[in-house]
Amino acid sequence: MIQPGPLLSQVNYPEDLRKLSQEQLIDFCKDLRDYIIEHVSLYGGHFGASLGVVEITTAVHYAFNTPQDQLVWDVGHQAYGHKIITGRREQFHTNRLYGGISGFPKRDESPYDAFGVGHSSTSISAALGMAVAKRDRGDDGHVIAVIGDGAMTGGMAFEALNHAGSENANLIVILNDNCMSIDPNVGALKEYLTDITTSKTYNKIRDEVWKLLGKLQGIGGTARSVASKLEDTFTSHMSKPGMLFESLGFRYFGPIDGHDINHLVRILDDLKKIPGPKLLHCVTVKGKGFAPAEADQTKWHAQSSPFDKITGASLSVKKPSLDAKPPKYQDVFGHTIIELAKQNDKIMGITPAMPSGSSLKFMLEEMPERSFDVGIAEQHAVTFSAGLATQGMVPFCNIYSSFMQRAYDQVIHDVAIQKLHVVFCLDRGGVAGADGPTHHGAYDISYFRCIPNMVVAAPMNEQELRNMMYSAQLEKNAGPYSIRYPRGEGVMPEWRTPFEEIETGKGRMVNDGEGVAILSIGHHGNYAQQAIQELNAEGIYPAHFDMRFAKPLDEDLLHEVFSRFDRVVTVEDNTIVGGFGSAILEFMADHDYSARVKRLGIPDIVMPHGTQDELYTYGGYDKAAIMKAVKSLVGVKVQG
Amino acid sequence: MIQPGPLLSQVNYPEDLRKLSQEQLIDFCKDLRDYIIEHVSLYGGHFGASLGVVEITTAVHYAFNTPQDQLVWDVGHQAYGHKIITGRREQFHTNRLYGGISGFPKRDESPYDAFGVGHSSTSISAALGMAVAKRDRGDDGHVIAVIGDGAMTGGMAFEALNHAGSENANLIVILNDNCMSIDPNVGALKEYLTDITTSKTYNKIRDEVWKLLGKLQGIGGTARSVASKLEDTFTSHMSKPGMLFESLGFRYFGPIDGHDINHLVRILDDLKKIPGPKLLHCVTVKGKGFAPAEADQTKWHAQSSPFDKITGASLSVKKPSLDAKPPKYQDVFGHTIIELAKQNDKIMGITPAMPSGSSLKFMLEEMPERSFDVGIAEQHAVTFSAGLATQGMVPFCNIYSSFMQRAYDQVIHDVAIQKLHVVFCLDRGGVAGADGPTHHGAYDISYFRCIPNMVVAAPMNEQELRNMMYSAQLEKNAGPYSIRYPRGEGVMPEWRTPFEEIETGKGRMVNDGEGVAILSIGHHGNYAQQAIQELNAEGIYPAHFDMRFAKPLDEDLLHEVFSRFDRVVTVEDNTIVGGFGSAILEFMADHDYSARVKRLGIPDIVMPHGTQDELYTYGGYDKAAIMKAVKSLVGVKVQG
Repeated sequence: MIQPGPLLSQVNYPEDLRKLSQEQLIDFCKDLRDYIIEHVSLYGGHFGASLGVVEITTAVHYAFNTPQDQLVWDVGHQAYGHKIITGRREQFHTNRLYGGISGFPKRDESPYDAFGVGHSSTSISAALGMAVAKRDRGDDGHVIAVIGDGAMTGGMAFEALNHAGSENANLIVILNDNCMSIDPNVGALKEYLTDITTSKTYNKIRDEVWKLLGKLQGIGGTARSVASKLEDTFTSHMSKPGMLFESLGFRYFGPIDGHDINHLVRILDDLKKIPGPKLLHCVTVKGKGFAPAEADQTKWHAQSSPFDKITGASLSVKKPSLDAKPPKYQDVFGHTIIELAKQNDKIMGITPAMPSGSSLKFMLEEMPERSFDVGIAEQHAVTFSAGLATQGMVPFCNIYSSFMQRAYDQVIHDVAIQKLHVVFCLDRGGVAGADGPTHHGAYDISYFRCIPNMVVAAPMNEQELRNMMYSAQLEKNAGPYSIRYPRGEGVMPEWRTPFEEIETGKGRMVNDGEGVAILSIGHHGNYAQQAIQELNAEGIYPAHFDMRFAKPLDEDLLHEVFSRFDRVVTVEDNTIVGGFGSAILEFMADHDYSARVKRLGIPDIVMPHGTQDELYTYGGYDKAAIMKAVKSLVGVKVQG
Repeated sequence: MIQPGPLLSQVNYPEDLRKLSQEQLIDFCKDLRDYIIEHVSLYGGHFGASLGVVEITTAVHYAFNTPQDQLVWDVGHQAYGHKIITGRREQFHTNRLYGGISGFPKRDESPYDAFGVGHSSTSISAALGMAVAKRDRGDDGHVIAVIGDGAMTGGMAFEALNHAGSENANLIVILNDNCMSIDPNVGALKEYLTDITTSKTYNKIRDEVWKLLGKLQGIGGTARSVASKLEDTFTSHMSKPGMLFESLGFRYFGPIDGHDINHLVRILDDLKKIPGPKLLHCVTVKGKGFAPAEADQTKWHAQSSPFDKITGASLSVKKPSLDAKPPKYQDVFGHTIIELAKQNDKIMGITPAMPSGSSLKFMLEEMPERSFDVGIAEQHAVTFSAGLATQGMVPFCNIYSSFMQRAYDQVIHDVAIQKLHVVFCLDRGGVAGADGPTHHGAYDISYFRCIPNMVVAAPMNEQELRNMMYSAQLEKNAGPYSIRYPRGEGVMPEWRTPFEEIETGKGRMVNDGEGVAILSIGHHGNYAQQAIQELNAEGIYPAHFDMRFAKPLDEDLLHEVFSRFDRVVTVEDNTIVGGFGSAILEFMADHDYSARVKRLGIPDIVMPHGTQDELYTYGGYDKAAIMKAVKSLVGVKVQG
């Protein structure tokens, strides 16, 4: 167990914090920061963001009466400090572990977690709802949203500002401006905020005017009165920093140093007394207080293995591997798109603020004019891709499965209805692991399968991913084409195979067998293969078909399957409601097949966090579950 | 056929328009406006928006070389003038009719329709994609997006501005500012734009300063140089109109009178020469040139029956009806929420810019403090509702089914994962009629059904809608609860029935029968009833179950059904991919039932526009199709 510093050890809850004197807060922040560094150096987790908001976290809990006053974090991976000082320090070593506390704020977990989160740009909407409800019941408590400059580029943040500005509810938005999402932030808003914070135009000009006006003081009465009027006119109408926010009805304060704890507390105390919507612009440094993280903020966004808490050097004992490891699917995507783009000059790459996470970063480096990081803006990313496609381009729009939910209408309305040639690469399809419920890509096969014109493909291995990407960009496949693959590694160390076309809607038999047919889609087919290996040892020989496409289905192959098998197991890393298994049931109904079908996949519940393997077991669709389903269909008794 | 005026009659395509002299454009606009008024007075359709952009339409096609230069309309219901002068005047009487031209821009229909549309706020993203693609291939053509001030509140417009401002692509955004969506526009952005256009602050202050500085001219050299410096400082840094857009990297021009055709043409000619992203702010009047429409812009947004083209008086011959008509479902919602809100002070009503379309307008009038029009901002509407729900409120968030696609992530991430008590009322569930593919609520049962914790309900009539709304707000049903109902009228003239609880997930038998069971969800059950009436006359007696819930299913009732029937027809006004029928198949698979099941509903295609009845027939799920399906299951030969 990590020992907290002397001040942190006295603080289990914000009420303890509020017993400290204001002078003690600097030392308290040091304790909190050290604790986070020590913790992440041992256990891993999100990192830079939490270090960047140590002072904001402390100041808000010190100045406000949480949890009656409510604090809403945007995205939420910066809430480690918040969790540590709201009763969860002792459990913090279970952070992001199966059965442990969540890496994000979560309402179930604590009354201090006013709103659960994981995706970006939601905080102002949620906080405004809270503020309006408080107003309705005459509760004069405060609501504070803390939102990063990256999250501010998400459209819904703007929608919320627009509503809040006219609603006049009592709301404080703290803009945590560190110029970063996970990767460096992009877009015009960033440049605007940088202008405010670096050029100091406002202060410079104000000083200049006052100096000039000072020179007029010696002149006569008329000139003096002119000067005075001018000053009024000028100072009330000049371009102030924050005009963008003031245009939207917010009172803007800042920019201030987001690491000056005493200033923060003072200004928050002041803001309490000002009614209406207010925005406090704080400039912070992601990774603040840990030199390696300050220096490379993207690398230190999150850490999964132990490191030296001073130097940042990795402490994981790496054995030189004799076998090459299979690559991450995301890297197969990242390198393959460059190979394809070299062959086809129509190809472009688009990511909404995930160049590292999607590995589009390789293309952004090598082909900057043909690849785009559009910021946290999934909706725009999709319709921008649609616009490119109208000009004959073939955009590959890479969005995590769970973030694609943000652009669902754009996929239907702007791409599918018009049958435009956009290739959607859905990374993190299936359970996402430690990030938990907000990040699981649990629904995409279901919500894409019901869209007309959409191809829904998922590769079982690296080679299939490459071949699907190759096939998707062919002129003959012009139209919306989605390829979903999971977080993490595939199975093929030798993955740079030559491109081969996969005909749209064609599956393959992985192995023949008898009694039961296993129909799988995507990477999970590998678990079916593992199950079959063990089943074979017990004398059970299921056939296995890697269907590759949930839409269109390989009807020829399915006719073959259902004419030979009356017991079928379907396997997918997606909800079993409306997913791949349901597509098989629809095929059966449409063609009057009857067979006993057991669908394995994510059950119809909000899946918790944990490792992917833990979640496969929890959800009942791991290797053992596949074996059990097969045995039960062939009439072999199984325990449990 | 309507006779076009003398100038319009010469113009079939923009190239004809460009042969007119600039002096002729005023008269041309009059011709075009008269043609639209005459047309809509006879045939109905969207109205006010198209009248408001007659000059913008004319100016863009005159100043630019369409279709090589590309014009992207936002929302698109304002594109009547555009269609009339781009080769579709002769077909324009088929506008919005089955088999006729679309009421919105549509890529299939014309090369002048650069991007298909129907939902709001997409134009800047699409246009930016086009502009970037043009840049990539060295095409120096222009791309022009025309977007209303209402659409500008949609978050994705902001996402696109943020990207465009930093991308430096050659793009002209024309902001058509008429202070209206369909209903009056709301939010801080509106107030900001109104400030610009009405207070004339900028010009007033500039004049004032120049006057004051003038007075200093008589003073000595120092003062003069001070004055001159001051002027520079002042004019370069004062608050200009358009600061909001300039903050985002756009060059802002305006505001100008959007009905001054010659000024428009001149300024567009100038803008052509200025590289990078530009925004031209035009102030227009919705319904311009037709007095009744200018006076009541919401009423005249669209017209469905003939009217006098001078006075606006309706020409439809209304027989005084002896039978009271059933109300529209939307009005049942609009009145019922007020009844419920009077009983339960936790209830609040939320609409994103659809107070009239959803009939929440009644509550906005009667209970303004408990109902909210948040602007075109579906994402915010949902998460704002989630925020309200965290405080114990019971928000009814009313969003058209097809617009709910915009807030899909918010439903999952902010409401369902947290199991917050938000009631979603999805109006226009099922095919929407003349508005066509972009507006069909074709997917919601599928995309909501796969979300954990979600209740998916659909009433068969007014009474069920009322009872579902009543049940949804009960504390025992705390959690996400969706109720979807179609556009148009129900079936119960006497609809104000007392509230009765419907247990969540409980269906009902409408009539018993033999041989075949029809399982329906929602209003379409009434067509099943009509089919059964006619089948009975032929000696066929199917049973009929109004299942009410696609999730959770009434398992007790289904066990009864499948123990008695081995032939089943499912009926829904939703895609048959992953919809209600698939839920039934999943139940069967999970419980080892086998039966022949015929699923009727929207087929897996992009449905065209037409009346709802025409589309039911086109899609193969009207009364006749239900009869045919039953007969084929009972072995009666059917033709066709």
